[in-house]
Amino acid sequence: MKIKVNEDLQKEREKCTFNIEELTYFLDGGADKTFSRRKLESFFLSDLNLKDEIPMEYLSHKERYEAAVRKSCILFKKVNEWQQNDDSGSNSMDIYKSLLGGSVGSAIIKDGSPFVVHYVMFIPTIMGQGTLEQQGEWVGRAFSNQIIGTYAQTELGHGTFIRGLETMCTYDPATEEFVLNSPTLTSYKWWPGGLGHTCNYAVVIAQLYTQGKCHGIHPFIVQLRDEETWEPMPGIKIGEIGSKLGMNSTNNGYLAFDNVRIPRMNMLMKNAQVLKDGTYKKSVNDKLTYGTMIFVRVLIVRDLVSNYISKAAIIATRYSSVRRQSELKPGAGEPQILDYQTQQYKIFPAIAISLAYKFAATWLWNVYNDVTSKLEEGDLERLPELHAMACCLKAVSTADAAVAVTTCRLACGGHGYMNCSNFPNMYAMASATETYEGENTVLLLQTARYLMKACQDAKSGLKLTETISYLNNFKSLRRNNWSTDLDCICNAFLQVAGG
Amino acid sequence: MKIKVNEDLQKEREKCTFNIEELTYFLDGGADKTFSRRKLESFFLSDLNLKDEIPMEYLSHKERYEAAVRKSCILFKKVNEWQQNDDSGSNSMDIYKSLLGGSVGSAIIKDGSPFVVHYVMFIPTIMGQGTLEQQGEWVGRAFSNQIIGTYAQTELGHGTFIRGLETMCTYDPATEEFVLNSPTLTSYKWWPGGLGHTCNYAVVIAQLYTQGKCHGIHPFIVQLRDEETWEPMPGIKIGEIGSKLGMNSTNNGYLAFDNVRIPRMNMLMKNAQVLKDGTYKKSVNDKLTYGTMIFVRVLIVRDLVSNYISKAAIIATRYSSVRRQSELKPGAGEPQILDYQTQQYKIFPAIAISLAYKFAATWLWNVYNDVTSKLEEGDLERLPELHAMACCLKAVSTADAAVAVTTCRLACGGHGYMNCSNFPNMYAMASATETYEGENTVLLLQTARYLMKACQDAKSGLKLTETISYLNNFKSLRRNNWSTDLDCICNAFLQVAGG
Repeated sequence: MKIKVNEDLQKEREKCTFNIEELTYFLDGGADKTFSRRKLESFFLSDLNLKDEIPMEYLSHKERYEAAVRKSCILFKKVNEWQQNDDSGSNSMDIYKSLLGGSVGSAIIKDGSPFVVHYVMFIPTIMGQGTLEQQGEWVGRAFSNQIIGTYAQTELGHGTFIRGLETMCTYDPATEEFVLNSPTLTSYKWWPGGLGHTCNYAVVIAQLYTQGKCHGIHPFIVQLRDEETWEPMPGIKIGEIGSKLGMNSTNNGYLAFDNVRIPRMNMLMKNAQVLKDGTYKKSVNDKLTYGTMIFVRVLIVRDLVSNYISKAAIIATRYSSVRRQSELKPGAGEPQILDYQTQQYKIFPAIAISLAYKFAATWLWNVYNDVTSKLEEGDLERLPELHAMACCLKAVSTADAAVAVTTCRLACGGHGYMNCSNFPNMYAMASATETYEGENTVLLLQTARYLMKACQDAKSGLKLTETISYLNNFKSLRRNNWSTDLDCICNAFLQVAGG
Repeated sequence: MKIKVNEDLQKEREKCTFNIEELTYFLDGGADKTFSRRKLESFFLSDLNLKDEIPMEYLSHKERYEAAVRKSCILFKKVNEWQQNDDSGSNSMDIYKSLLGGSVGSAIIKDGSPFVVHYVMFIPTIMGQGTLEQQGEWVGRAFSNQIIGTYAQTELGHGTFIRGLETMCTYDPATEEFVLNSPTLTSYKWWPGGLGHTCNYAVVIAQLYTQGKCHGIHPFIVQLRDEETWEPMPGIKIGEIGSKLGMNSTNNGYLAFDNVRIPRMNMLMKNAQVLKDGTYKKSVNDKLTYGTMIFVRVLIVRDLVSNYISKAAIIATRYSSVRRQSELKPGAGEPQILDYQTQQYKIFPAIAISLAYKFAATWLWNVYNDVTSKLEEGDLERLPELHAMACCLKAVSTADAAVAVTTCRLACGGHGYMNCSNFPNMYAMASATETYEGENTVLLLQTARYLMKACQDAKSGLKLTETISYLNNFKSLRRNNWSTDLDCICNAFLQVAGG
């Protein structure tokens, strides 16, 4: 069936004064990337097996999860197919990223994939914190989905205060095993994606006890379910935590341990180690674990925030071009609602911040890669700055995204309230990022602490890192004349931020 | 099973410095009203047949609707039972109000009842705009649920601009019938609650054509489905519009007409009339229809807004008393998060505005009753003021409610994201009120227009109505010294509002 573009929409598009294709290349990072993206999108989005017979919103909680698993399995098969025929040099991680959290994946499994944490946290943690031997044992099997993992850190009673985690992992030198226990109800692991029914392995963060002493939290690989029967392993209490505002196919779960024994080699030992006799060997540098923690925050800003805002802005803009309401002059017909100032005040800022965060995210991603590559060489100088920037941008951008999606939704009236508009789902996904991977109020306090310290450094005449160097010189840049050129606008922002 | 109150919560309650029961009486409007409310709550909420075997959030869209119908039927039976045994003098409308939109109803059917519009709009419209003969024909049968109605005004293409409705109702003097038609796709009725599958009658708002002339929009009673078979009547296209952010058991529907014939007496003729020969007789006073339109806005402010905000504030406060996080001094234990200032800044304003809107709503309800009783006597003087106050309070309070529920939800971290917290449902219900019964931006513009006119009146030295009289005298009340007494605070608000 040939689809006819709505006339009002067509007219608006014809009024465009710039080269759309050129801007697309710029936003994608080059014409070749646009080409690859479109090829990938068309390969996956054209597959009729990946379409919903009944829209997800009509299904029960259980059916939604089953649909997500069914689609994920098709996706994994297609990834293999793609890789065998692809000559564009894109690597597996790039494809998985695009298919799990990215624009392609969220179009296919709208409500969160139960396999995201396997790729975004389970595999990266083993690669980042496991020894070569440990990587050899698990990474290959994980990549080929022979084992499915999750990352079990948060507990029912503990999110923000990670040091307060209660799960205990005690070394028993007699058998060279660790023994895992959940001493209280509040120590139940809570939230890990895929934990409900999908995974059979987990990286579990627990307090390490050896030789009668607690050494703080460390990561352990734990088998949760039998690889064939999927029955819980002895001593494992496991299940799904229940339905949520959104992300109802992520299959978030709970987990508790009753004297669960794992081999000594299941502690990820790239940094700290426990020797056969139970001797604890500290990590050379505690801060090396920072890198992984920051990674997901950077991904949120890069892959989620500007995606949600721009989708919302696009839907609202198109709707406002097509929707007509309230004849202002008798007989003149009803104007497109995009022509009302009140509508523009809602939608245009959303378009602007979707681009602003896209550029900020690209910058943050580059800083992240730069800083982590230097970490490997032992250079930790820019780590606090990266940490502060990731905290700040994650908090500010996710809060802005939730507001922008809501504003665009309300700008579409009752139609924006319907699930077929996709707004309710986008809001649920955007708002989740305000809480997970660092609750925003806590991250803002960490940003404030960093800025307070920087102000003191500035007063003491110390050299500041690049991003906050304006604290040293914003006063000397003060100007009195306003003009709309870029220099003056940037300067004005420095004055506001510095004052 | 005896439930033990959490110790932290118990301690907080014991610190209370005022008489809780006395405050409860005050908020309910007297000890007798508290007594009646509790008796009603206990009668309905203790019924095991009204509990969910499986929480609604796990069900499919279809199952949710069926559960809501099942519970509604039990509710109606219990209302009869209640009325036979009740000696407190509460009338049927009061009970239905409490059971459909109010606190009892929203506890039993959380996601909106498919029968609300029947009681809140169908019956009141017949009573307000039908002749005595018409009331005799339909109201009795409607009250005993022999017929179930809805109110079909909004169309797919028209919400705000009611004058632009496209549904046509043309009088045919040959048969003394009206003929209803939906000329376009955009003229499909869209949104009425209960229309999807629940109702068999509707008040339909359509453009009246008689003797070749259009006389603007008027209300007509139309039978939509056979009373026995529930099959659509000839020429009726009808169905459900689909799933939404919330209100998924309200069964919102669509409706179109293809030469549907109804008797002349199905036009509600208390005001305007069409005689047998097709002669149109105008209403004595067009503004009399205002009253009904304002009614629902007043109800939103009175029954929904402060309800949602106070529920959200209560849940967040209790959670913050029980939840402990982040040991500040080693060994001191983790403090209750309610003791953090950042948490107080989120929750305390929600508590405050829930009370502020409760009092404002009581005031608005009294003004509404006062003005409408004068309307009956032909006194329209305060109608514009009531209209402006209802517009303004509906817009401001619903927007505040959506923000307050969200802030309280985020204050509960991941737990607030789960449906078992009830926050997602409360948000969906609160946010819906931002759009329905007058889109908020449009209502704010109407408020602004009223205030601009009032300012001009004030400048011209005209006498202003009570609520805006401060525009005449806020300057003369200017004071320089600040004190925290009520007078000074009120005065400060007048200065800000007036300046």
